[in-house]
Amino acid sequence: MPAPLLPPGALDLTGAAAGGRRALQRRTMAALLGAGYAEVMTPTVEYEEVFLRAGGAPVAERLLRFVDRDGRILALRYDFTASVARVAATTFAEHTGPLRLAYTGPVFRQDPERGSRARETLQLGAELFGIAGLEGDLELVRLTLALARAAGLTDFQINLGHVGALAPGLAALEGELRVRVLRWIDRKDKANLARALEDQSAAARALTALAGVIGRRNALEEALAGAPPAAHAALTHLLALDAALSDADRAHIVYDLGEVRGLDYYTGVHFELFVAGIGRAAGAGGRYDGLVGKFGRERPAVGVSLDLDTLADGVATVEP
Amino acid sequence: MPAPLLPPGALDLTGAAAGGRRALQRRTMAALLGAGYAEVMTPTVEYEEVFLRAGGAPVAERLLRFVDRDGRILALRYDFTASVARVAATTFAEHTGPLRLAYTGPVFRQDPERGSRARETLQLGAELFGIAGLEGDLELVRLTLALARAAGLTDFQINLGHVGALAPGLAALEGELRVRVLRWIDRKDKANLARALEDQSAAARALTALAGVIGRRNALEEALAGAPPAAHAALTHLLALDAALSDADRAHIVYDLGEVRGLDYYTGVHFELFVAGIGRAAGAGGRYDGLVGKFGRERPAVGVSLDLDTLADGVATVEP
Repeated sequence: MPAPLLPPGALDLTGAAAGGRRALQRRTMAALLGAGYAEVMTPTVEYEEVFLRAGGAPVAERLLRFVDRDGRILALRYDFTASVARVAATTFAEHTGPLRLAYTGPVFRQDPERGSRARETLQLGAELFGIAGLEGDLELVRLTLALARAAGLTDFQINLGHVGALAPGLAALEGELRVRVLRWIDRKDKANLARALEDQSAAARALTALAGVIGRRNALEEALAGAPPAAHAALTHLLALDAALSDADRAHIVYDLGEVRGLDYYTGVHFELFVAGIGRAAGAGGRYDGLVGKFGRERPAVGVSLDLDTLADGVATVEP
Repeated sequence: MPAPLLPPGALDLTGAAAGGRRALQRRTMAALLGAGYAEVMTPTVEYEEVFLRAGGAPVAERLLRFVDRDGRILALRYDFTASVARVAATTFAEHTGPLRLAYTGPVFRQDPERGSRARETLQLGAELFGIAGLEGDLELVRLTLALARAAGLTDFQINLGHVGALAPGLAALEGELRVRVLRWIDRKDKANLARALEDQSAAARALTALAGVIGRRNALEEALAGAPPAAHAALTHLLALDAALSDADRAHIVYDLGEVRGLDYYTGVHFELFVAGIGRAAGAGGRYDGLVGKFGRERPAVGVSLDLDTLADGVATVEP
């Protein structure tokens, strides 16, 4: 009788692969607890509605779901942010002041186009509720830097943007054109982008330049000089955040206004963590002030999540 | 829009409930690593066949399962033992000598009779492959004691039995009578048990006395004096195990030959961990030499798993 194979996208981890992930999890969780975050444990299986309410259509096609005995649709945890936002709105419905929650565990996603990709990945992250604007953003950016250091990373970078940079220009575009423009921005195809926008309003045409902004403080300053007034608030916000960072922290930050993934989800700053030598993000975060309200209580929120599987690839050796 | 409720048997853990579990997990895993066990991480979702092959009919009705995109039946992890046995037989197919593996994570079970009971619980455990007989049994009993101490328990007890004590008598019984006898043994109903067995063979009639044996070394010695020859090997094995334990370890051991749950699963010693004040077992283990072979390679195996949710109830305060 041959041993059964694993389902597509499932993986056994042994030896250093398992030990390294557990050590990363322990170290980064210790950093979160040290920063005042308290762990919450949410169920691995929830009603699909929780994840759909938080993530909408892009989540719907990637959920792993099944029917419960009572006929209701369950889903494996797609992300923690939805569940933790639900907890913030329910368990902590009467909580006042800042609420700092941490989490870690597996999340489950299937990619309709890439069946064999891992469907289960190990995440760890934090959510800060109740602190709006720059103060909360700064705390999360610093926390992300602290997590990267706790993980043992030295050569890493945070690509930081703000939805308010492109939002005014994108809002001026109609449905189909908007989709095309987003695709060209995502592909960094400046020529096609400029061509698509040449007959559009000044705010829309400004997208060509703004979407190409990537660099340090001076890139933001240059962008601000040429940006339409509607984009000023976002750029000024990023400049204020930059001014508040220490030199050591600032050395890891690159401002990137051309990141469009998650644009419908975030409501302010958003960022991705990249580790030298790894082609995909090892973490992501941002502000989503609209999320907790979907579960019954309006609260400003900003968070970060790390992909510990990707991170383990980026950390040469993890001491247990 | 009201916040969605959680599915039956799902739970959010916050504050000390979450922190306590994580601390217990960290401490007990550290004890396992210190004892030479290496962590393996198996997928949360596997083919149902893995769990059915290991656990058979009692598992079948308690699995949480769903259909994969390719039509095959998946199940949420019912226990780690099945998955770790699969890993031992496949990833470690060429491994020689003792193999010590540890694990921790959620397991998922639904109870057909008690719908609202927790369907997800947090487990941690260890499996020792490749050491047959007393030597392996001793290592696992000592490891279980070390785990209980690492968890911070002081007032706890291991109820230890051996399937070989009752197996000869049970083997002499036919189907329906065997089921009835098992039920009376489980209920400790000595009167009905004796009545059911009065017309049976001497080996079967010996069940009445053997199933009632519970105590320290002297209880085993008394049992041995009156037991049928077929039960001697099991009793002698337990006596040898007792002799090898230190006084401090022995103080936590109670021999209990009347435990019939898992009788079809274990092939030698089996035990449960009880914590003062908690009415259900906080851990269980035993020898199952037939399990790994079901995945393609015969290896002796003995293991233990802790229910960290139950354990958390038994530990007054868990320091982070």
